[in-house]
Amino acid sequence: MSETKRTTIVLFSGDYDKAMAAYIIANGAAAYDHEVTIFHTFWGLNALRKAEDVTVNKGFLEKMFAKMMPKGADKMGLSKMNMAGMGPKMIKKVMKKHNAMTLPQLIEMAQEQDVKLVACTMTMDLLGLQKEELIDEIEYAGVAAYLGDAEDGNVNLFI
Amino acid sequence: MSETKRTTIVLFSGDYDKAMAAYIIANGAAAYDHEVTIFHTFWGLNALRKAEDVTVNKGFLEKMFAKMMPKGADKMGLSKMNMAGMGPKMIKKVMKKHNAMTLPQLIEMAQEQDVKLVACTMTMDLLGLQKEELIDEIEYAGVAAYLGDAEDGNVNLFI
Amino acid sequence: MSETKRTTIVLFSGDYDKAMAAYIIANGAAAYDHEVTIFHTFWGLNALRKAEDVTVNKGFLEKMFAKMMPKGADKMGLSKMNMAGMGPKMIKKVMKKHNAMTLPQLIEMAQEQDVKLVACTMTMDLLGLQKEELIDEIEYAGVAAYLGDAEDGNVNLFI
Repeated sequence: MSETKRTTIVLFSGDYDKAMAAYIIANGAAAYDHEVTIFHTFWGLNALRKAEDVTVNKGFLEKMFAKMMPKGADKMGLSKMNMAGMGPKMIKKVMKKHNAMTLPQLIEMAQEQDVKLVACTMTMDLLGLQKEELIDEIEYAGVAAYLGDAEDGNVNLFI
Repeated sequence: MSETKRTTIVLFSGDYDKAMAAYIIANGAAAYDHEVTIFHTFWGLNALRKAEDVTVNKGFLEKMFAKMMPKGADKMGLSKMNMAGMGPKMIKKVMKKHNAMTLPQLIEMAQEQDVKLVACTMTMDLLGLQKEELIDEIEYAGVAAYLGDAEDGNVNLFI
Repeated sequence: MSETKRTTIVLFSGDYDKAMAAYIIANGAAAYDHEVTIFHTFWGLNALRKAEDVTVNKGFLEKMFAKMMPKGADKMGLSKMNMAGMGPKMIKKVMKKHNAMTLPQLIEMAQEQDVKLVACTMTMDLLGLQKEELIDEIEYAGVAAYLGDAEDGNVNLFI
């Protein structure tokens, strides 16, 4: 069978460790020549936020969400043992010690490997996130596009 | 290929946002003519609870669980930024503003689209939930039935 | 079609209830003659830890992680209503009452049914877990081996 294999991941979670797992699997699958898509929805959108401040016009609720959510991959917390931010620091220390890639590096690698990074437009709207606030070279789509990729997928995960 | 596509979702989570994601994907898949099943297990069963009080005979532990768990989709908390219930209120406000469907509406829509809603009998037993406490027109089954649906599925997710 | 069906589960979570769900699905699939793999990564590795103390040489950070993480399946907390450990006690009580299998029993059953239990070597390294600390008769592999199993899988889940 010469058909291309396909891996499609929904990244719902805004946790550093879960996003790491998603990007490690995605990069692995890309290395094995899968067509890979990561569909970022809800809190997973935070992995795509720019680290710097971006001035955009927003309503009050949208401003509050924007303030409370982590600004980019490097600022995300852990799903377990977050301990007011101490957990992520510890994890980053051991990662450095073991020469493991950080989440921002994993995202960069994914882009270099042509992993398709998609931001869910419906939840961007809900959380008040605008295109200017997200990193470059990503795509914007809804659940229909996700299903189009997923229904022929070999590996479909919700993370 | 004229074969019907199939989407099978295990809804384990009792979080409002995760259940929303599950039902949005399910409704999308149903719109694309997939056969869709949502298998509700553990805390995901709470999405199927009736909002009103139902008098049933229960042991002490089962009563405690019933009291501590949210009574129906509308009462569920968020996986992130729940902030003692303030998060769900904020989310519902922005959802209203953007004309997004609420979780109870998404569930109703799923039923209208013939999405098969299944309650896991084993975990109903564990958490002490009885059929009278769950909404009408759902099915009751165990892990074997889930696997039967999932093993021929195109999109299988655990949420 | 006489081909063997395959179920491949990534167990990322270190929660008792989520690990139970993973092992119940795995045991069910094995009973239906699927080839089943559970790939334990991040906090999911704790399900494979031995209950007893094991003396191994570790750095300071690794020692801290080891101390903070649950020692084996029986010590894991709940994803919901953990309530400082009261939740798991309540769950275990109702499980006993309903003759449901505990997580350690489900793991044993999985091993008897030849479910392939794999520990992710990359995250073992990160969390400072060593082979001596994990239960016997498991395999050690990385994301490439996981993808090899998953890409031909019928049921792929991330839990």
